[in-house]
Amino acid sequence: MSQELKWLHEPAPVPDEAARRAALARQAQLIKPPGALGRLETLAVDFAGYQGRAQPQLNHLAVRVFGADHGIAQRGTSRFPQAVTSVMLRMFCEGGAAINVLSREHDADFAAINLGCVVPAHHPDLIDEVIAPSTADFSRESAMTESQLQRALLAGQRQAVECDCFVGGDMGIGNTASAAAMFAALFTLDVADITGRGTGIDDAALKHKIELIESALELHREALHSPLEILRTLGGFEIAALTGAFIASAQRGTPVLVDGFMATAAAAIAVAVNPSVKAWLLFAHRSDESGHQLALECLGVKPLLSLNMRLGEGTGAVLAVSVIKQALALHNSMLTFSEAGIPVED
Amino acid sequence: MSQELKWLHEPAPVPDEAARRAALARQAQLIKPPGALGRLETLAVDFAGYQGRAQPQLNHLAVRVFGADHGIAQRGTSRFPQAVTSVMLRMFCEGGAAINVLSREHDADFAAINLGCVVPAHHPDLIDEVIAPSTADFSRESAMTESQLQRALLAGQRQAVECDCFVGGDMGIGNTASAAAMFAALFTLDVADITGRGTGIDDAALKHKIELIESALELHREALHSPLEILRTLGGFEIAALTGAFIASAQRGTPVLVDGFMATAAAAIAVAVNPSVKAWLLFAHRSDESGHQLALECLGVKPLLSLNMRLGEGTGAVLAVSVIKQALALHNSMLTFSEAGIPVED
Repeated sequence: MSQELKWLHEPAPVPDEAARRAALARQAQLIKPPGALGRLETLAVDFAGYQGRAQPQLNHLAVRVFGADHGIAQRGTSRFPQAVTSVMLRMFCEGGAAINVLSREHDADFAAINLGCVVPAHHPDLIDEVIAPSTADFSRESAMTESQLQRALLAGQRQAVECDCFVGGDMGIGNTASAAAMFAALFTLDVADITGRGTGIDDAALKHKIELIESALELHREALHSPLEILRTLGGFEIAALTGAFIASAQRGTPVLVDGFMATAAAAIAVAVNPSVKAWLLFAHRSDESGHQLALECLGVKPLLSLNMRLGEGTGAVLAVSVIKQALALHNSMLTFSEAGIPVED
Repeated sequence: MSQELKWLHEPAPVPDEAARRAALARQAQLIKPPGALGRLETLAVDFAGYQGRAQPQLNHLAVRVFGADHGIAQRGTSRFPQAVTSVMLRMFCEGGAAINVLSREHDADFAAINLGCVVPAHHPDLIDEVIAPSTADFSRESAMTESQLQRALLAGQRQAVECDCFVGGDMGIGNTASAAAMFAALFTLDVADITGRGTGIDDAALKHKIELIESALELHREALHSPLEILRTLGGFEIAALTGAFIASAQRGTPVLVDGFMATAAAAIAVAVNPSVKAWLLFAHRSDESGHQLALECLGVKPLLSLNMRLGEGTGAVLAVSVIKQALALHNSMLTFSEAGIPVED
């Protein structure tokens, strides 16, 4: 492993077990049957562990959307032209996209990062981390060079800012093909099981997408021997940046709310590279992208929401923030049996 | 049918189809792939139909929790003593229960209604609609008289206040037995399939609960010939009040966010009595009470959330309000393709 990638392996801290136990004890005292708040209880306990205190808060949300183009998109894997990546990066800066609306609802610290678009993207607020106009077409060659991978990972690391919860979103025409290929390689899956319609391609385009990925996996078989090589060979700049941002957030003790198909691919690489990261990841939702459920099962995680969303940008993750906030409000503000003067049963 | 129950059959209005179409057209113009926001899109379209305008709002939430005791609880169907119903009604007025915390998050118009508790409940803010200290034990006789049923339904009707969305919650030790019996009778289900552990009873108590319900259904077989007779014979005062509140809300054109097992039983009766109500019901979550999924399937509805909650009080419904609010924010505030200067693909 090169020196430049060494930071990826630094362990993340272990969530505070004493604080988790204190939060569990508090949950047992709140005026409700034990366990009756279900996952809202485990969320409160998780955040207690993250913050090292029995009564945690989620006030400061950071949202970072990483955008980049994909060489594979020139093979017709998407129904949208590559120019859309650039346009959407500008939209994120102008505040009119779905992720902006949701981020405003939570008063989030928001920024968009440009890793490289075929049509150059410009906006005064757009963070410039341009590596190249796009990755290479992974059906023909490795998507990234070693140096490009390092730069993308570091671009993500730089965005792991101080906050109570980090959301990383993706924008990149063609990136479901990249994520599907990564999952297939990482978890040894049938390509047809993990590959979906992305932004809505038809049956013929889906068949073509599956064949492209299958032949790419065959082409690169020798290279796909490690998570980072899978990321370099099949991934995208924005997926690698997400991987870097997730690892760095976990390393600084910030929980990450993982969005949909692309963010989960980045999370899967992050966990494979550095297993200590997993304790800091919460999986926000099950995307409508057909392979996402399988990917979540391979990771052994259960998402919070399932609302048939498949937009990316981090939208599913920010939607789940309100569930976490309400879980913490319940945890912190409900009365205990003794405060309410109710004798505890058995 | 008695004159006193005639109001139940007055039709609810039909949601505004032109507004729904206008909202659908707007969704198609927002800067995202068609359908990519999944259920958030259908929620926005539903609210457009409810409010008769293409860009609806959810500002005013009303939450009403109905509490009452159940004769069946004296047969050991719950792990909690009946005194808890009364204590919790007081708690709702003092603001320390889960539903209070969630209602405050949404600045909701909140009230608790006492339909009758074994231990009398008193609080200056508690709305007094006391019918009797409890229903009769439905394993031995009908839970309610005709007159009691009428009073409970009207108590619910009176709480169908002006608002953008109505949530009705329940509190009543023993009420999962009542709701399970109602579902079994209404949908002709095996009692063992629909009956769960409520607040957390053990295997022996669950077996006893199932046997009690089975023998009650046998005892009352002749009487269970209509939805209202099922409600009168097996239901509770708070479930009947919820039924009345749901029907009256729909009749005044207010959407109802239906909570868990008990609220769904009330909704099932409401729809069976008056099918026009169904268009105004949104099912908020799948409860962890084991029969709830089956009940939702019998109704042909898909809940928004599934977070292993089983508290009642309306908590699952209020949790879903934040999802609806975010769906409407997206619908109203995202830019359209033309506003963003993006050419629309075919």
